[in-house]
Amino acid sequence: MPQDDATSQFARASAVRTEDGALFADLDGGWNVGPGVLNGGYLLAVAARAAVIGSPHPHPVALSASYLRATGPGEVELFVTPGTAGRTLAHSQVLLADPDTPNLSVQVTTATLGDTAADHAVPVPSIPPVDDCLPTRTASEGPGSEVGIREFVDVRLDPSTAGWARGAPSGDPVMRGWVRLADGAPADPFALALFADVLPPSVWSIGMFGWTPTVQLQVLVRALPAPGWCLVEARTNEVAGGWIDEDYRVWDSTGRLVAQSRQLARTPR
Amino acid sequence: MPQDDATSQFARASAVRTEDGALFADLDGGWNVGPGVLNGGYLLAVAARAAVIGSPHPHPVALSASYLRATGPGEVELFVTPGTAGRTLAHSQVLLADPDTPNLSVQVTTATLGDTAADHAVPVPSIPPVDDCLPTRTASEGPGSEVGIREFVDVRLDPSTAGWARGAPSGDPVMRGWVRLADGAPADPFALALFADVLPPSVWSIGMFGWTPTVQLQVLVRALPAPGWCLVEARTNEVAGGWIDEDYRVWDSTGRLVAQSRQLARTPR
Repeated sequence: MPQDDATSQFARASAVRTEDGALFADLDGGWNVGPGVLNGGYLLAVAARAAVIGSPHPHPVALSASYLRATGPGEVELFVTPGTAGRTLAHSQVLLADPDTPNLSVQVTTATLGDTAADHAVPVPSIPPVDDCLPTRTASEGPGSEVGIREFVDVRLDPSTAGWARGAPSGDPVMRGWVRLADGAPADPFALALFADVLPPSVWSIGMFGWTPTVQLQVLVRALPAPGWCLVEARTNEVAGGWIDEDYRVWDSTGRLVAQSRQLARTPR
Repeated sequence: MPQDDATSQFARASAVRTEDGALFADLDGGWNVGPGVLNGGYLLAVAARAAVIGSPHPHPVALSASYLRATGPGEVELFVTPGTAGRTLAHSQVLLADPDTPNLSVQVTTATLGDTAADHAVPVPSIPPVDDCLPTRTASEGPGSEVGIREFVDVRLDPSTAGWARGAPSGDPVMRGWVRLADGAPADPFALALFADVLPPSVWSIGMFGWTPTVQLQVLVRALPAPGWCLVEARTNEVAGGWIDEDYRVWDSTGRLVAQSRQLARTPR
């Protein structure tokens, strides 16, 4: 049964609290992508929540993050440096530190998102219905994997991009699937930051298994998502010299493009 | 005749100098995209030069910039805050200020780029030869335009994406062309930051003319470019609620993907 935002698992796990004018979050070890390493989109959502606290605008519309080091669970402090602010948008920089050492540095732009129809849009990919897709919780994620985030984010992969799970990678570095919060809470712009880095690495489809640590990640949030499953597609354009890129596009249940992301990451070791 | 990097127009215009341990640049008003407003890629290249001065690594590989306000010509100071640094890569933050007010805040990742062959790559678009393409210096850029950067960067547009110049926009928000520094200097990773925001706005191809101010821009530099013309493609995915995105891909003369960018911008007013 859907829960309201205030009580959803995601809202609790990514909450930012104010104490004596300082901002803190308690990072939940369950939102990991490997032993002791938290998901990059989850961390970005925490930083985005810190940014809107001091902003005249309620929604993150652009987030550009440098992942300075792998981040584990526990208390972190968030330092927000305001930039320019106007009627349309405001800029700030957020540093997430554990507790004295910077882990994540994020440039944030906030604004007020709407859900008006797009003037121009790209077509939505066609994928099988949710029930014909493959839950990542039942798919093997390769040797040594321990991916707690799969308990909180329900991902159903398009079988044509999930060949890697049965030992037959498709050969095309693309991953597509339906995504929602596992407790049924509706997605909001913070959840879209999470969804923009939530699929298994798309290079698994070309047989490059393992962890792909994010170096920089940019997320654009384009509109308020409608309730229901989001369709998420991730694609790698180039693998070279130990580096990969990954592009995400996220559509809501009405077929509206609601988020995009691009990251530079290291190839699996 | 090609000039070496030290004397190219671009190297001079984007140079960063050290004075008593502080970093300064003299922004050249010729590199503008409108009256008194400098090109975003040019400013990003200046910030990238500041970042490598204190880095153990010579090349920018990821740059994520928030454009806090429009920037005009004159002296600016550059403040570099080092992040983590390792054998493979180093992070820093660069603030470009004019002279006391921040104009541009950039997250920079530096590393050592190579030119080894890609393990996986996307196909290069096919466009007509340089001599069959349209110089932007002779194409009208719409009412009130004064685009000085066209004197320093030679852009030859694929005629199929330049219909807007003869009053017949193609209807597809894509712009493609050949790009090189006008004085013949070879491109380097700093020039690629410039090339990743150098074409006329791709929404001109859907009849949305005017200036599209960049809000956030991320540039990834993927390899050292070979000498010669680069092929640059820009594409807008979504126009909605006063916001547009724009994706760039840059290939060198050997067909190697050497840079990618994505920006969030405002629609023309």
